[in-house]
Amino acid sequence: MYNGQTVSDGWPIGATGEQTLFLRATVAYDGTDFNGYQVQAGQRTVQGTLEAALMQVTQERVRISAAGRTDSGVHALGQVIAFRTRWSHSIGALLRGLNAVLPSDVAILTLDLAPEGFHPRFDARSRVYRYTVWNDPARNPLLRRYAYWVSQPLNVAAMNEAAQLLVGTHDFATFGLPPKGMRTVRRVIRAGWTQNLHTLYFEIEADAFLYRMVRSIVGTLLKIGRGEWSIDEFVARFAATDRSLSGPVAPAYGLCLMAVNYDISEPV
Amino acid sequence: MYNGQTVSDGWPIGATGEQTLFLRATVAYDGTDFNGYQVQAGQRTVQGTLEAALMQVTQERVRISAAGRTDSGVHALGQVIAFRTRWSHSIGALLRGLNAVLPSDVAILTLDLAPEGFHPRFDARSRVYRYTVWNDPARNPLLRRYAYWVSQPLNVAAMNEAAQLLVGTHDFATFGLPPKGMRTVRRVIRAGWTQNLHTLYFEIEADAFLYRMVRSIVGTLLKIGRGEWSIDEFVARFAATDRSLSGPVAPAYGLCLMAVNYDISEPV
Repeated sequence: MYNGQTVSDGWPIGATGEQTLFLRATVAYDGTDFNGYQVQAGQRTVQGTLEAALMQVTQERVRISAAGRTDSGVHALGQVIAFRTRWSHSIGALLRGLNAVLPSDVAILTLDLAPEGFHPRFDARSRVYRYTVWNDPARNPLLRRYAYWVSQPLNVAAMNEAAQLLVGTHDFATFGLPPKGMRTVRRVIRAGWTQNLHTLYFEIEADAFLYRMVRSIVGTLLKIGRGEWSIDEFVARFAATDRSLSGPVAPAYGLCLMAVNYDISEPV
Repeated sequence: MYNGQTVSDGWPIGATGEQTLFLRATVAYDGTDFNGYQVQAGQRTVQGTLEAALMQVTQERVRISAAGRTDSGVHALGQVIAFRTRWSHSIGALLRGLNAVLPSDVAILTLDLAPEGFHPRFDARSRVYRYTVWNDPARNPLLRRYAYWVSQPLNVAAMNEAAQLLVGTHDFATFGLPPKGMRTVRRVIRAGWTQNLHTLYFEIEADAFLYRMVRSIVGTLLKIGRGEWSIDEFVARFAATDRSLSGPVAPAYGLCLMAVNYDISEPV
C-alpha cells in the first residue's frame, strides 16, 4: 500500500526490506474513445487510464512502460506493458481487481512476473500489426469503428505482390518518419493480405515500425489494389526513400496492434 | 417529389397517372444506440431513422414495413424492408442518396424493385439469427458491443448436442412468448454452434421466432455449456412448454439478424 512517502520520478520508493513486484501485462483496448496510448495532460489516454486503475487498486502511484505508443484511434489486442508495485496479495487478485475498475474499452488479458531488467519496448524482437478493410459497395455499420471501408473492387493479388516486396531489411523512409535523428531502416519479417468474404486483413510483422508506417503502407497498397498505381510505380516510390511519395495514410481506426514478441519466451 | 397532397394512412396518395415504385431493401444496423427497430414516439429507432432519411431524400412521407422488429440493442446485417415511393430517378441514385444521409450506424445494402404484393414479414419463409459469445477469461474490449462475454470454459459439444434437439417442428413455449393469442409451435430448420478461437457463434434458422426465443435458447444452452444443466434437464424443460423453465435471456447485444429468406427468389 502507498504510505505517503515522497515519489520523485514516478517510481514508488521502496522502504528497506519492502518487497516489490515487477510485472508485465498484455493489454487490449478499443482506441475509438482514447487520445492515443501515451499520457497527455487533460486527455483520456490508455496509459493514463491504466495508471489510474493501478492507483485505485494498489493505492500507489505507478508508472508503466509500454511496447508501443499507438496513435489516437488505433486499437490493440496485444499491447505489452511493465510496471513495479508493492502489491502484497496474489497476482491473480491484482488482475481481477484491475479489470474490475477499468472501463469497458480496456482490459488486461494476462499479468505475470517480468524477468528482471525487462523493458517492453527495448526488448521487443518484433511487433505484429493488423489493418482491416471492409471491401464492399455498402458500408458495414457493425465494423465502422474497426475497418476502413473501401467501396471499389480491389485487386488483392496485386496488393499481395507489392506486400511481398516489403519483406526484408529495407529503408522505409517513403512510408514513415523515424524518431528524431534515427535511421529509417527496418526489417519486415512478413507482410500480406488475407480475405474473408468482404473483409480484408493486412498483417505485417517487423522488428520495429516508423511513425505511421503501417497506415502509409496500407494507403499505398490500396492505390495498387484500385489499379491507380502499378507494381513498378510502387517499386520506384519505395526505392526513392522519399516520404512525399507515399500513398495516403489510411485511417487510424482500421489498425490494431496484435502482438509484441520477445526472445525471452518465459517470464522469470 | 412530395407535392403537399393529404397523406391519410402513411402511404403517399398517387395522383392520376403518377408512377410509384414498390421497393425492397436489405438493411444493416448497429443496434447499440437504437431503441429497437420499431417506431416509438420520442425514441431513436431504426424504422424512424430510415423513414426520416426517405423523407429527406424523396420529400415524401414514406411508411416502411419490415421482416422483423428487432429488440433494443439487437443488430442486423440482413433486415428486409419494403416501401412505396414516387421517386422519379434511378434506384441506384436513391440507394446512394439514402446512404449519404443515413447515420453511420445504419446502412442500406441493396435496393431493388419488389414483386407486387410483397410483404417482408408475411412472405418470409425463414429468418436466420446469429448469437456471438466471447469465451475467454479476459474481456475483449473490441467485441464488447457485439458479443456476450462468458469467462468460464464452455462445453461446446454438449451445447451442440442440445442445439440439435431444437431442429424440427416443436412447441417452443419454454423459450418465448407468441404474439397475443397465437400458437407457440415453430419449425427450426438448423441450429448449431461454431467456434473460431475464443469466439463462439450460435446460428439458428426457423420459419419464425417467438419473442426473445433466440436469446432464451442461448441462455439455456450456456447453462448446459457451463455444466449446470444436463441434456436430460434440457429435454425436460423444453418438453414442459413452460416459459418459467427457460434459462436466462442472453443479452441483446450478442444477437444479430443475419438474413430473411423468401420463396420468391427474383424480384419482379
